[in-house]
Amino acid sequence: MGLHRGVSIVGAGMTRFHNKLHIDKTGRELFVEAALDAAGSVDKGFSFKDANALFVGNFTSDVFEGQGHTAAVMADWLGINPTPAYRIEDACASSGAALNLGAITIASGMADVVIVGGVEKMSRLTTDQVTDALALAADSSFETSVGFTFPSIYAAMASSYFKKYNTTWDQLAAITIKNHRNCILNPKAQFQLDIIATGKKMGEKSGRIFKNEMEFLRSDLNPVIASPLKLFDCCPVSDGAAAVILASDKVARKYTDTPVKMIGMGQASDTIALHSRPDFTTLRAAVKASEDAYKMAGVTPKSIQVADVHDCFTIAEAIATEDLGFFPKGQGGKAAEEGKTALNGELPINPDGGLKAKGHPVGATGVAMAHEMFKQLRRQAGQHQVNGAEVGLIHNVGAAGASVAVQIYRRG
Amino acid sequence: MGLHRGVSIVGAGMTRFHNKLHIDKTGRELFVEAALDAAGSVDKGFSFKDANALFVGNFTSDVFEGQGHTAAVMADWLGINPTPAYRIEDACASSGAALNLGAITIASGMADVVIVGGVEKMSRLTTDQVTDALALAADSSFETSVGFTFPSIYAAMASSYFKKYNTTWDQLAAITIKNHRNCILNPKAQFQLDIIATGKKMGEKSGRIFKNEMEFLRSDLNPVIASPLKLFDCCPVSDGAAAVILASDKVARKYTDTPVKMIGMGQASDTIALHSRPDFTTLRAAVKASEDAYKMAGVTPKSIQVADVHDCFTIAEAIATEDLGFFPKGQGGKAAEEGKTALNGELPINPDGGLKAKGHPVGATGVAMAHEMFKQLRRQAGQHQVNGAEVGLIHNVGAAGASVAVQIYRRG
Repeated sequence: MGLHRGVSIVGAGMTRFHNKLHIDKTGRELFVEAALDAAGSVDKGFSFKDANALFVGNFTSDVFEGQGHTAAVMADWLGINPTPAYRIEDACASSGAALNLGAITIASGMADVVIVGGVEKMSRLTTDQVTDALALAADSSFETSVGFTFPSIYAAMASSYFKKYNTTWDQLAAITIKNHRNCILNPKAQFQLDIIATGKKMGEKSGRIFKNEMEFLRSDLNPVIASPLKLFDCCPVSDGAAAVILASDKVARKYTDTPVKMIGMGQASDTIALHSRPDFTTLRAAVKASEDAYKMAGVTPKSIQVADVHDCFTIAEAIATEDLGFFPKGQGGKAAEEGKTALNGELPINPDGGLKAKGHPVGATGVAMAHEMFKQLRRQAGQHQVNGAEVGLIHNVGAAGASVAVQIYRRG
Repeated sequence: MGLHRGVSIVGAGMTRFHNKLHIDKTGRELFVEAALDAAGSVDKGFSFKDANALFVGNFTSDVFEGQGHTAAVMADWLGINPTPAYRIEDACASSGAALNLGAITIASGMADVVIVGGVEKMSRLTTDQVTDALALAADSSFETSVGFTFPSIYAAMASSYFKKYNTTWDQLAAITIKNHRNCILNPKAQFQLDIIATGKKMGEKSGRIFKNEMEFLRSDLNPVIASPLKLFDCCPVSDGAAAVILASDKVARKYTDTPVKMIGMGQASDTIALHSRPDFTTLRAAVKASEDAYKMAGVTPKSIQVADVHDCFTIAEAIATEDLGFFPKGQGGKAAEEGKTALNGELPINPDGGLKAKGHPVGATGVAMAHEMFKQLRRQAGQHQVNGAEVGLIHNVGAAGASVAVQIYRRG
């Protein structure tokens, strides 16, 4: 099955992702900032009132901010009442799912123009509270109730991966190093230090000098969070928002001569509790969602020239690049180690720094990935521009893969 | 704008709504129960695996149950992985909004069959905690932070209505009496007592006998909650779930010879904070959503022969029947008083007892209304069957009207 009519991105914006910068802002203020940035990016001009619907990806503003009914709040603050507004929640895949539904709504005939945004304001809570809030995305009956939170869930996946493929944590460290090298080229990224600079800064406090990135990552200054995952294997807590403007093929050229077409989409579900799965080293929902997206787009993994994948933990990036068909099973970490996924590699992965280094305000992440593809495919990514990419893919994961949304974009 | 292809309901089910009956069940168990009831209602048989997508309306299982990522949980428990699953949150209009998106997804070409459900498991919390949780749907910056909760918000609307139209609380009491007369005919309803029986039961404890329904409602046994609203003006706290199965016109006849067509839909947004509105006696979003639905359906308010409206408080029903164009402004309460909206009246409103007496597990309410239309228009509503209705409308409100979803159904 496919969409009855084509859909393109005609504008994209985002706030900087950060854990401290936005401390005094509410989620609604961040959302408006991202939406204004998106509107400002539309070559021939855009008024919010052009939108026939608003989709807001958000995980749990209920808990993070004491505010539900999130989409109505955002419609109000964008000044677009009575435009229909829908909040979509699929854990950390909330705004990837919202992108699918935005495109579906255009294809249905009910809209020509849709704003799809995502937002999460997490920093009001302590890190422990955030960890508990995020654990709402796991299985309350069988996981969180017995103490499982996401660092430990992904740690179990990493242990299983190491055993199955006889690999080690060094490959995960290669992903950390690569994503931190990318983030310093992206002014929207939370972290603006690569691992060399981080090691120098953190080493100075204790009078230590690290010979290279790996030596720092191996040290006790990078403590274990949930073995085998260490601090720098985990994405940070972030505040932020992102927004894109989708238009039907019929009206896209009214807004820009260089739209970015959504040529494929997929979404799939899997068991929410990790223990119900036969294999911890693959996300079945990612495999299915990407297969559907490739089929709709009429392309193969070899066609993809740049990708943003959901690296909430480094192990997640290794597995993602395998599930998406970029590398054989068990070779995702090795590909990073060999530089294949670097900014100048054969298939740049997370040129924006990824969740790991760009930050992960969970509900905003899927749309922030679409923002990155819009910029990359239009050659507007600045210092982290990938050379000559025509086709890009985004992969947004909810929880440990119980929801996965994938889209494929082509330079229009 | 309209849908690219037609959509019908081919099956509908729900749990009984109740505050105590389901105390030991989780939301996922209630959801499965409702979905099984819906599948069982499909004349020619239905397998959950026939569905191409799942939509789950839910307000805040995050707070009520400590479980987010609600749609993935439900897909898992229905055994339909990897089917895409989306949670839709628009406060108490969550599942009305989910119905719109389910139909939109079929119209887009991405699905032929969609399950749309709604669920809320509220009884784990105390009534005070529930009131606070529900207040997440109001404006956290400008309403809840200064003590406003929904009883007081709707009380402000009632006061304004009384003043503007020179009417009194007696008209609201007429709505209570009517909805409780209806609920005793609906075995799925939370309350199984009309106001005569309630007055008798409650009066016995203090040795009092009430001459009629109104005398009881005026008494101190019906205490003020937020003046002018009394206890019996407010819907109860409820647990429950509902589900419908939507199919494209292309495949609907595979499931039943008597589908119920969704001939019109609308959704609209309004300011979330009440104080930002020029008039508290109308929900602008309800007016807009219904205008859009009437236009798509090619009918007028006079065409509607039965309606379920969102009577979270009695004043909401009075206003709804005006916003929807059934009665002139200021005449909604009077219409109830005159019996026009009774089960055998000229336009039966809430024949199932409404939120007031059937119960209001908030995320389930919109789909429960669609369930009611499915039964009514197929002449399967049992003792609360309305005579000969061919066209019915549902009206599902989020918060004090910041989100409103409307659908119009016709016997297929």
